[in-house]
Amino acid sequence: MTTLQDCRALDAQDPLAPLREHFALPPGVIYLDGNSLGMLPKATAARVADVVAREWGTDLIRSWNTASWFDLPQRLGDQLAPFIGAGAGEVVCTDSTSINLYKVLSAALNIAREESPARTRVVSERSNFPTDLYIAEGLCKERGLELVLVEPEEIAASLTSDVAVLMLTHVNYRTGAMHDMAALTAAAHTAGILTVWDLAHSAGAVPVDLRGADADFSIGCGYKYLNGGPGAPAFVWVHPRHADRFWQPLSGWWGHAAPFQFTPGYQPAPGITRYLCGTQPIISLSALQCGLDVFDAAQPLGGMAALRAKSLALTDLFIQLVQERCAGHGLGLATPREHGRRGSQVCLTRDEGQGLNGQGSGAYAIVQALIARGVIGDFRKGDGGQGPHKDILRFGFTPLYIGFEDVWNAVEHLRQVLDSAEWQRAEFNQISAVT
Amino acid sequence: MTTLQDCRALDAQDPLAPLREHFALPPGVIYLDGNSLGMLPKATAARVADVVAREWGTDLIRSWNTASWFDLPQRLGDQLAPFIGAGAGEVVCTDSTSINLYKVLSAALNIAREESPARTRVVSERSNFPTDLYIAEGLCKERGLELVLVEPEEIAASLTSDVAVLMLTHVNYRTGAMHDMAALTAAAHTAGILTVWDLAHSAGAVPVDLRGADADFSIGCGYKYLNGGPGAPAFVWVHPRHADRFWQPLSGWWGHAAPFQFTPGYQPAPGITRYLCGTQPIISLSALQCGLDVFDAAQPLGGMAALRAKSLALTDLFIQLVQERCAGHGLGLATPREHGRRGSQVCLTRDEGQGLNGQGSGAYAIVQALIARGVIGDFRKGDGGQGPHKDILRFGFTPLYIGFEDVWNAVEHLRQVLDSAEWQRAEFNQISAVT
Repeated sequence: MTTLQDCRALDAQDPLAPLREHFALPPGVIYLDGNSLGMLPKATAARVADVVAREWGTDLIRSWNTASWFDLPQRLGDQLAPFIGAGAGEVVCTDSTSINLYKVLSAALNIAREESPARTRVVSERSNFPTDLYIAEGLCKERGLELVLVEPEEIAASLTSDVAVLMLTHVNYRTGAMHDMAALTAAAHTAGILTVWDLAHSAGAVPVDLRGADADFSIGCGYKYLNGGPGAPAFVWVHPRHADRFWQPLSGWWGHAAPFQFTPGYQPAPGITRYLCGTQPIISLSALQCGLDVFDAAQPLGGMAALRAKSLALTDLFIQLVQERCAGHGLGLATPREHGRRGSQVCLTRDEGQGLNGQGSGAYAIVQALIARGVIGDFRKGDGGQGPHKDILRFGFTPLYIGFEDVWNAVEHLRQVLDSAEWQRAEFNQISAVT
Repeated sequence: MTTLQDCRALDAQDPLAPLREHFALPPGVIYLDGNSLGMLPKATAARVADVVAREWGTDLIRSWNTASWFDLPQRLGDQLAPFIGAGAGEVVCTDSTSINLYKVLSAALNIAREESPARTRVVSERSNFPTDLYIAEGLCKERGLELVLVEPEEIAASLTSDVAVLMLTHVNYRTGAMHDMAALTAAAHTAGILTVWDLAHSAGAVPVDLRGADADFSIGCGYKYLNGGPGAPAFVWVHPRHADRFWQPLSGWWGHAAPFQFTPGYQPAPGITRYLCGTQPIISLSALQCGLDVFDAAQPLGGMAALRAKSLALTDLFIQLVQERCAGHGLGLATPREHGRRGSQVCLTRDEGQGLNGQGSGAYAIVQALIARGVIGDFRKGDGGQGPHKDILRFGFTPLYIGFEDVWNAVEHLRQVLDSAEWQRAEFNQISAVT
């Protein structure tokens, strides 16, 4: 049996422990939701205050030049690139994940329409994050294409000659299951299919090698593992072989080859810059930069490889402790045990037992009871299906600021919430607007 | 002849003078570029700091509920609505102006495609802000439609039976000329044409009455006259008769009827909420709120009517003083003299005289010389045409924080720059990335 002392010993040996000092950790909180909103880096408050008071307030419009506001999306993209296996000049930080998906999926469908007009299907995963499916559904509706949703084990068989694009989220938001990006991309390419990878739950969480996998398009989120702040700008990457081929549909002035010539006709900038649209949110971009800076600080400590090793150790420990200490309460494991198929989170189902008065699974209320104790994970509602489609208790483990003792304490709180039936209190069974 | 003392007397009588106290005014600056980036409200720094340190840093993911992050786009929209003649629940603050234009122009074209498929043209103004034209060009290209660009005096004649949408910016960014929204909307409707109005240079600058004009769609900018900060979220309004009719193409999860049900199929929210796409930038939205708060503070002092009266007095004075004090230097007036056709800026051309070595108009260098003296306007390059298509020296007059003495001093600096030929110095003839 692993003990609290064992966990403390693991923390004492952790080469990444100093990174925790980069974050403003609220007292009394064990934060297992960095996969939904990353924590605040200590540097962010001062950086944002300087952007507001000096760059905006004092230097005003001159900051477009003097503070280099104008190329901030590209500079942040270059800073992020090495952590997702992209090259310099291939990434921009901009807009939201949904908007960036619209851009790249449109571009991919334009290529397919030109090269292979008989390809009329877009394949994705049934439990992909809904906004990805909504964006794809809208584009398919507009263009008379078909969106085909399959289970993970059905993907390979779905790569048929009528498919234009395979659109997947690398790590599933509900289960934490990770796809083999290189293998699926290779299989798609063999079948003449382009790939769009959403890295919302990958960038900053697991090593990603877009160029190594020969992916075609990718997008991702700035406010989860990258710690960019609520609603932080997202990012977009396009393989250089595609970047100059098409306008993306949101052809705004920041994607123009010469935006300050103010010419009436659109001339797209070369490369990834054409994936910018309107004027970018400078305050939010500046906050994102502080989130990316922490990854730079992690480089001399082992970088993404060290972060990945710690993440797997944390999630292994959590799974083990839940099994040892919370048995008999109907919890199941939705996250794969194999390291190669696991992201940086652990998702539990509630397979047996019921919610209050026989309603629901009780998973929502268990999560609320944990939050009241300062153990912040989140709940993701199921659609009534089996396995990964059940209600989910989701716990993210960000190796930048979560330690092994945190894992032990989180499981101890979960044990107490279950053993005492504390979760059945009325206050934990009220549904809030955002879950 | 108007004197400096006259200007001081006008400031002393100005009922809006207390609003200046809401802004952080840098010493030594006369800021005539609030039409490009509004000034920093004093309240913004503390508000942003609280969002970063407390709402994000301490309350973390709980703030989606406890700080009401989730409905911030709608709450800001409701706060803005009265200043643009919109009703409650009809506006959301979100994304960029360009992205919002893509949404509403797509929706308008969807209506036209369904009701009047023979209408295959989009009409706009040749000197409309380029990003509006780029977005329209992209959509027209995708759908096989034609974008027709005309001069302002040709608009009425262009409203033919093959036109689907008339897309105009209410106040022209180059000249400050204002269209008659009600008259042009009525003429368009008579011809069966939908209207899209860009309020980038109107919202917060001139009274706008979208419902009174019976407009169909509108968008606008948060970082100009609304003082929301660099790259602040923009806004979008749709007349209720159209709001529920179509998906807009950027059908992301924030526009879903039940975003936290995480259902795989898209069901648009009723009304304007479906014009949201991905997760919104909370820090930037919070800064925009402080900009909107100043307009609330202006309400007991006379609101938009008082702001309009002062704006016209400021721009009248500037025109008069330039004519009295800067004669003989080749300056012309691009902005209409009639009050009903003028926004809140004055644009000068340089009609005679040349730049250094016979290159260019010298307008760019004159603006740089003024900026070096702390008089911040901006330069907009012409395309070699006549009148409004010449190079422009642009000066915005934001009645919230610009006074009559500022106008006098600005013109005095302009006079000195011209009389001394100071603008011909090499340092003022270097082109920066952002102009």
